Amino acid sequence: MYDLSCLAGLKIKKHMFTSETKVRVRYGETDKMGYLYYGFYALYYEVGRVEMLRDVGLSYRMMEDELHVAMPVMNMHCQYLRPAYYDDLLTVKTRVEKFPERDIVFYSDIYNEKDKLINSGSVKLAFIDMKTGRRLNCPEVILEKMRPFFD
Amino acid sequence: MYDLSCLAGLKIKKHMFTSETKVRVRYGETDKMGYLYYGFYALYYEVGRVEMLRDVGLSYRMMEDELHVAMPVMNMHCQYLRPAYYDDLLTVKTRVEKFPERDIVFYSDIYNEKDKLINSGSVKLAFIDMKTGRRLNCPEVILEKMRPFFD
Amino acid sequence: MYDLSCLAGLKIKKHMFTSETKVRVRYGETDKMGYLYYGFYALYYEVGRVEMLRDVGLSYRMMEDELHVAMPVMNMHCQYLRPAYYDDLLTVKTRVEKFPERDIVFYSDIYNEKDKLINSGSVKLAFIDMKTGRRLNCPEVILEKMRPFFD
Amino acid sequence: MYDLSCLAGLKIKKHMFTSETKVRVRYGETDKMGYLYYGFYALYYEVGRVEMLRDVGLSYRMMEDELHVAMPVMNMHCQYLRPAYYDDLLTVKTRVEKFPERDIVFYSDIYNEKDKLINSGSVKLAFIDMKTGRRLNCPEVILEKMRPFFD
Repeated sequence: MYDLSCLAGLKIKKHMFTSETKVRVRYGETDKMGYLYYGFYALYYEVGRVEMLRDVGLSYRMMEDELHVAMPVMNMHCQYLRPAYYDDLLTVKTRVEKFPERDIVFYSDIYNEKDKLINSGSVKLAFIDMKTGRRLNCPEVILEKMRPFFD
Repeated sequence: MYDLSCLAGLKIKKHMFTSETKVRVRYGETDKMGYLYYGFYALYYEVGRVEMLRDVGLSYRMMEDELHVAMPVMNMHCQYLRPAYYDDLLTVKTRVEKFPERDIVFYSDIYNEKDKLINSGSVKLAFIDMKTGRRLNCPEVILEKMRPFFD
Repeated sequence: MYDLSCLAGLKIKKHMFTSETKVRVRYGETDKMGYLYYGFYALYYEVGRVEMLRDVGLSYRMMEDELHVAMPVMNMHCQYLRPAYYDDLLTVKTRVEKFPERDIVFYSDIYNEKDKLINSGSVKLAFIDMKTGRRLNCPEVILEKMRPFFD
Repeated sequence: MYDLSCLAGLKIKKHMFTSETKVRVRYGETDKMGYLYYGFYALYYEVGRVEMLRDVGLSYRMMEDELHVAMPVMNMHCQYLRPAYYDDLLTVKTRVEKFPERDIVFYSDIYNEKDKLINSGSVKLAFIDMKTGRRLNCPEVILEKMRPFFD
């Protein structure tokens, strides 16, 4: 129905915005198979993109609290390549490949301690005015931080 | 430091408010030990008390949306007597033993399919005016539904 | 990168296996936006496919415990069309469109109480021999239950 | 039924084992009230005690994988003093007050960025032989690491 073969092997383009953070797998996030439960990767993608924004001095909390802009998720795609186990210290590499306009797509590649790629995902988010519920373009406060990475 | 020995064996008093609901253990709620993770019982207590309110025609959603009363949790106590396993269809028995005033305490006993008590817990909640953040007494809309059980 | 436009509007084919179950949104599953958190839909898809199997007399627990076959997730795609709110009683419609061989794909459409489609997802799972860790074809115990739906 | 008044104000004794770690509140861990959901503190207590063990060179994963000793939770008590909000960087202070024998009790005090105590909890865990399911005394590998703190 749709082809994801290109997702994992994606060639790194010159002009993009990247970030890296660590997340350790909690006991409560594993399942009886002993793996990080497939639904909880979404929490790790979230950590990756929030820390990416923090890297350039942006706070998602501030966006909601002061700019009254929320970023609901429009779609998510996940590929599970290898399991993540309890207590693994994972590296979440996040990137934005396309300068955001109406929406923003964060790609996440998650590596285990042996530096093996275990998971690739993407999350597309919209921008919403929290007072009116209307869709917005990506706020200038984000754009100005991202421009240097795409020039 | 404090004694819970009385919690599980609690004698059922005449005048109280009780309710019963079923919850099935999801795969994502188990941990690598194969048990329902100890932190997720709180979700089951929540289901128990919300369904208890629904039994008498009360909706917690309505309380927040229309009465603007929220019920933050003040304390919780849990005793883990036996494990719950994946796909177990648990019975959550909820009771209110004391007519609520400044706060309300819900007791939960959780039974497995063999009718064995696996978990006993209690959760004390306060009543907060969502506009002012101030504590309230238990709203009359709840009291009037509970009175028949305590008369 | 990949096109999902066809996912939501998918034409219902004659020969497929379908199932329907209800899930109510818990308080602990909402986020500060007031929505069901985007990562927790995976739990609802899980409920949908497990209940689908139960509909035809199959238990995923039995598959692991007796057949020693586990079904790890290979990929997941989610489209978030409308938010789900606290206490919403959602309808999860699950379907298998293609007779399973090396893997099985479950499609989930989630509807709110106004019968609006709020979420569409798909989850592809493999079959693993829990003793050897090797991939298997779909076990005959599943195939025999599904054949009538695909004839 | 049981008195917790002493829990928060607990006097710090001379001979105990303490540890400190940081946890940031994820969006998916908040609820529609905007607070860290009351059930998810258990995950933070877990992080606190696992990092405490790591501080002295012990790995809970190794305990399960190599010693085949699991530590199921017997009881938990939580007091919610102030809310934790999205993106708060919390400090989890964990302590063991009593030299472990048949079980071990971890006390957790959680502080927000303003250094206000927001939550106090305790979790009692048993030691189980994963092969026989029988209860054990605290393994010597833990005792030897803890002795220096209690002498």
